[in-house]
Amino acid sequence: MLPKGFKVGGVRSGIHKKEGKKDLALFISDVPSSAAAMFTKSVVKAAPVLVDIEKIKKGGKFSAIVANSGCANACTGSRGKKDAEEMCSSIEKHFGLNKGSVLCSSTGVIGQYLNMPKFKSGVNLLEKALGVSFKNEEEAVLAIMTTDTFIKKAHKKIKVKNGEITVWGCVKGAGMIHPDMQGLHATMLSFILTDAEVESKSLQKILEKSVDDSYNCVSVDGDTSTNDTVIVLANGQSKTGKLSSSDMKKFEEALNEVTLSLAKLIAKDGEGSTKFVEIEVKNTKTKNDAKKIGATIATSPLFKTAVFGADANWGRVLAAAGRAGVNFNPDKVDIYMGGINVFKNGAALNFSETNAKKALLKKDIKVVVDLKSGKAASKYYTCDFSYDYVKINGDYRS
Amino acid sequence: MLPKGFKVGGVRSGIHKKEGKKDLALFISDVPSSAAAMFTKSVVKAAPVLVDIEKIKKGGKFSAIVANSGCANACTGSRGKKDAEEMCSSIEKHFGLNKGSVLCSSTGVIGQYLNMPKFKSGVNLLEKALGVSFKNEEEAVLAIMTTDTFIKKAHKKIKVKNGEITVWGCVKGAGMIHPDMQGLHATMLSFILTDAEVESKSLQKILEKSVDDSYNCVSVDGDTSTNDTVIVLANGQSKTGKLSSSDMKKFEEALNEVTLSLAKLIAKDGEGSTKFVEIEVKNTKTKNDAKKIGATIATSPLFKTAVFGADANWGRVLAAAGRAGVNFNPDKVDIYMGGINVFKNGAALNFSETNAKKALLKKDIKVVVDLKSGKAASKYYTCDFSYDYVKINGDYRS
Repeated sequence: MLPKGFKVGGVRSGIHKKEGKKDLALFISDVPSSAAAMFTKSVVKAAPVLVDIEKIKKGGKFSAIVANSGCANACTGSRGKKDAEEMCSSIEKHFGLNKGSVLCSSTGVIGQYLNMPKFKSGVNLLEKALGVSFKNEEEAVLAIMTTDTFIKKAHKKIKVKNGEITVWGCVKGAGMIHPDMQGLHATMLSFILTDAEVESKSLQKILEKSVDDSYNCVSVDGDTSTNDTVIVLANGQSKTGKLSSSDMKKFEEALNEVTLSLAKLIAKDGEGSTKFVEIEVKNTKTKNDAKKIGATIATSPLFKTAVFGADANWGRVLAAAGRAGVNFNPDKVDIYMGGINVFKNGAALNFSETNAKKALLKKDIKVVVDLKSGKAASKYYTCDFSYDYVKINGDYRS
Repeated sequence: MLPKGFKVGGVRSGIHKKEGKKDLALFISDVPSSAAAMFTKSVVKAAPVLVDIEKIKKGGKFSAIVANSGCANACTGSRGKKDAEEMCSSIEKHFGLNKGSVLCSSTGVIGQYLNMPKFKSGVNLLEKALGVSFKNEEEAVLAIMTTDTFIKKAHKKIKVKNGEITVWGCVKGAGMIHPDMQGLHATMLSFILTDAEVESKSLQKILEKSVDDSYNCVSVDGDTSTNDTVIVLANGQSKTGKLSSSDMKKFEEALNEVTLSLAKLIAKDGEGSTKFVEIEVKNTKTKNDAKKIGATIATSPLFKTAVFGADANWGRVLAAAGRAGVNFNPDKVDIYMGGINVFKNGAALNFSETNAKKALLKKDIKVVVDLKSGKAASKYYTCDFSYDYVKINGDYRS
């Protein structure tokens, strides 16, 4: 499923303290690639984020992404930055890549230094671990996972005039998820590989739009990470040449499909989550209004615990909408939970609590908030808040 | 402890479904009083809030506050508004008060209509329940409580030139707590009674400043309610007359002391909370910067679960600060948790985990974030996030 001209792999270096867990991944292209990237907007940016931002700003072609789990290399000062730079240069040297052509990412505990001797022993193992098989894909993704409970990857093949293009992506992230990224300026890490030929500038533009409707519409706990990173490498090895505008459109749709399905997988794997929740806010004046309301509902602990309890507590939906900072007329609002119209024109409906409970006991919940005051809409993805969220995060670090 | 010329009381009317629970309170002054009030900024405002806003806007003097628990009378449309108006007029009639001189508040489940027959039967019981004793105070506060686990009230007596003034206040609220109120436009209900003579305009000004540093600096779950309300009645029955500017200053300090101690009690009684947390953000450029960072840390589920787990996970503190929307230099930041300096000048300190654990196992935790980049500061109050929070809110409505 990997796009042409890419190899990936994951190994255990020992950086991650969990016994046996793979913790070092490499995504490498046979030829230098165009790249686009987005990073956390947090004022507190991890060392690998700072290093990547500098490289992406400089421009040029990139050949590989090296990423580790178990240590976020965040809040580690100048030593952390030097370590991140060494992550890149070690890969460059070992694999004979151009200077400055490797990007890096880290995820895990904040405030600890990377174990560089372990990292280096891992680099030596990476070469044998690289490949194009399903197993290589899985190992690469496993190596970047922290509290994730399953492998999140997706791909899409599209026909273009001169042949076939593949967009492949993976993502990790289950907690501290509320990405809020901007071009050049989680701990969600997502790496997207494609054999399309797209120059960096267009790729950046397409990526920003795509992230805005996918990763930036997902929240597990409202916490934006110091390490959130999305990187796309486009190596042109499909040999389909420069894309026509209609083929470019297809490519964009394929990328959007991959990022959206990965974004949903994050919400499905939210720490301690028992349910996936899609919140559609529609008929708002602007898309931004819809997004703000969706985000506020998705991050409301009261809403999320109600979903956990399969309680059609639409009052919490409306209360969250009301404090989202968007002006609307509450008397026009309709609310649907699990397909059941529970609130209409600003008033409670006499719905069957038994049916509502049944609907909300499902694993996949849809909540619709219709403001009936415009034509814009947006979807937001999240999960419920369970006992296990508290358990996982009450002793994650220790 | 009540100020002169006030009587209070609480009865069971049956509005609240919980067996035996008192659910109807009355706070009444012997003479018409100056009033000041602040209400939720949510777009979705409960009927009693809408009714009170109109009355306060109109101005004039007020004689009583009637409040119920068990039903929020929110999202109940025109019928809800009519019911809220009737709450007020029933009290007016029964107690022979001026038309328009009663304010009302409700707290409880959203989207249900008030049971007016039960309310009216409650009104008949109120007269006998009114008084000035400690027991009357407790019954009044009990009647407005929902998931609160203890009675929250406070008072302060001050000497002024012509005698003594008392400021008495109570508050209810344990969940859906993240008040965000504004003048004329807080399910936290707080009623403050004083026998000082202060005209409404000054009272409003003093209240707004006081709320900004107290109730607006508390978060249990980040959820602002449809019903948040703070009302002050000042009846002048201390007979100390118009206050001199130095006495007014003393009055203001007394009010601030009462609101701050009540605000802290809310955080201490946060739903499912096991710990009280004070977050001090200091040496910021502006007070607003400090408040934004404090609020972001206080609402971070990752921070709150770490506190529950007694884990000195300062990375979560810093990550929350970084996404607060305030620009600062992470390399200058110091962090203290439970009195232990865990992070200094942007880098982790090698602190004793054993000591940190011991410090964070206490019931009263202080977190200090020092940005060292200005002279402003602010304190924010919250609690931890426990299994019980999920339990309480997973089936609150049912």
